[in-house]
Amino acid sequence: MSGDNVTAAGVRAAAARLKGEAVLTPLLESDMLNERVGGRILMKAEILQHCGSFKFRGAYNRISQLDDAQKRRGVIAWSSGNHAQGVARAARIFGAPATIVMPADAPSLKAEKVRYYGAEIITYDRYKDDREAIARPIAEERGLALVPSYDHVDVIEGQGTVALEAAEQAAALGAKIDAFVVCCGGGGLTAGCATILEEVSPNTEVFIAEPEGYDETWASIKAGARLTADVTRRTICDALATPAPGALTFPILKRLVRGGACVTDEEAAAAMAYAFKYLKLVLEPGGAVALAAVLSGKIPARGRTVVVTLSGGNVDPPLFATILKQFG
Amino acid sequence: MSGDNVTAAGVRAAAARLKGEAVLTPLLESDMLNERVGGRILMKAEILQHCGSFKFRGAYNRISQLDDAQKRRGVIAWSSGNHAQGVARAARIFGAPATIVMPADAPSLKAEKVRYYGAEIITYDRYKDDREAIARPIAEERGLALVPSYDHVDVIEGQGTVALEAAEQAAALGAKIDAFVVCCGGGGLTAGCATILEEVSPNTEVFIAEPEGYDETWASIKAGARLTADVTRRTICDALATPAPGALTFPILKRLVRGGACVTDEEAAAAMAYAFKYLKLVLEPGGAVALAAVLSGKIPARGRTVVVTLSGGNVDPPLFATILKQFG
Repeated sequence: MSGDNVTAAGVRAAAARLKGEAVLTPLLESDMLNERVGGRILMKAEILQHCGSFKFRGAYNRISQLDDAQKRRGVIAWSSGNHAQGVARAARIFGAPATIVMPADAPSLKAEKVRYYGAEIITYDRYKDDREAIARPIAEERGLALVPSYDHVDVIEGQGTVALEAAEQAAALGAKIDAFVVCCGGGGLTAGCATILEEVSPNTEVFIAEPEGYDETWASIKAGARLTADVTRRTICDALATPAPGALTFPILKRLVRGGACVTDEEAAAAMAYAFKYLKLVLEPGGAVALAAVLSGKIPARGRTVVVTLSGGNVDPPLFATILKQFG
Repeated sequence: MSGDNVTAAGVRAAAARLKGEAVLTPLLESDMLNERVGGRILMKAEILQHCGSFKFRGAYNRISQLDDAQKRRGVIAWSSGNHAQGVARAARIFGAPATIVMPADAPSLKAEKVRYYGAEIITYDRYKDDREAIARPIAEERGLALVPSYDHVDVIEGQGTVALEAAEQAAALGAKIDAFVVCCGGGGLTAGCATILEEVSPNTEVFIAEPEGYDETWASIKAGARLTADVTRRTICDALATPAPGALTFPILKRLVRGGACVTDEEAAAAMAYAFKYLKLVLEPGGAVALAAVLSGKIPARGRTVVVTLSGGNVDPPLFATILKQFG
């Protein structure tokens, strides 16, 4: 796969499919945040998307294009929990049975909401099992269509609608986007956003923010080849604990990503506490790394207009309470 | 004071003054919330307003109309903390010194942000002192203009822009508002909203939600006379612990409010936990009572389109962590 088939036109087509189905999430701004970093931060609040993350966009864009017979047979996905919810909700819209392969230690809020949308959950051990090896035989046996969490053109183009909307919202404010910072796991959101930004906002620099230990995407870009993370390593950023950039996403990222920031668990937690106190928004650790990259100064914002993706907010109450105690 | 001088035209004039100054806060919707209550809930997210509550609107509308000499002398307000921040931020815009009389036990986040915006804080004991008796001599001595937290036409008309915006946003969605539920303390937000709704959405029923022990406004409306709450009573809803409806707000409320709900601390806390888990929004107790009234069924939403004000989000991390442990 070369990635050549991910196009700005494809992102526009996805936006047309998602119109009225996805939440047109607000682009938020805070005077206190702007004053703190000395720039203009525009936050694309995908935590307010259906299921609390951007993932519904790509899942819907993929499932809506399946033929009717396939929709009846159903879909399958593996996911740490946000993609799972997006797939479950999109599948429900089309009456497609959904099977989700999820780590047993996924946040319970994520599992609860996957069940809420009527999907069947099959659990695996994140540190021992190969989730693909579990999912593939089930998919074949049941004739299910795979909805990959990042490495599929329809999924990438669906996620790219985040940047298309943000660019339109920024333009309505009269703002020119200097930098666009994306929370990056497998790179689906980044690849989609970078693809559409190249067309609609070519002077915007795309940055990725990754959690410590799972910062293999920026390392891969610098090395010019896909490197692999040690997936036995612990991180509070469960949503971004991806082993490697995708075969389809990597060539796009390599060409279009300008820089990367590696965010520690402490920085992610501090950004969550900041969002709680001053923005009144609930971020999960993996959804806070772009904000953390800006708050920590790892991605400079002084004198610039920077879009930051707030990509997910599904965090369990006990972890959030612990973070508030330590960082609030 | 009769309240007759609060007008829909005044709310429109306030909206013109606030354009580009206040955040046009989003009207949010959640499929899970709609499914739970069996209706359509549109949430006016004033937690995303400057300073984390609607209070900036009224404060700005009042201070912007002071003459230049008065702006130079400055303003004074008493407040449990949200109005204080709104006044401090609005005063800063006009270069007006701001003095705030605040309870010593106000949430520390509220005090921190008042100081951030450069106001001077004078503290008092919420359960013993008369804040007016403290503030009035200072105001006279320094020649400060009072910015009342609810009982002033400019303040009420400023707060009314919440409903004007919500009505326009609902109309853009093609939604007809059956009910509009307001978190109610002294009644400034309710009076302003009810006044403009009478013109732009005359079939909308206005309801108030009040915390237990401070539900004297609905009791006053039923009694036809202003009753007083026992202000020594504890509540987690600090923002709504007001002794009585205002002299100016009460006649408006009496004429235009259709019903009231009394919300317990437990129901407010449960609504905060719900907003955390499913809406990804941070609500303070007093800002959660309208949502709590709908979640508890005290204000019926089945088959109806209901606007709920999320009026404030300034809650200290330790209290929030405790609530997450108990209700999350």
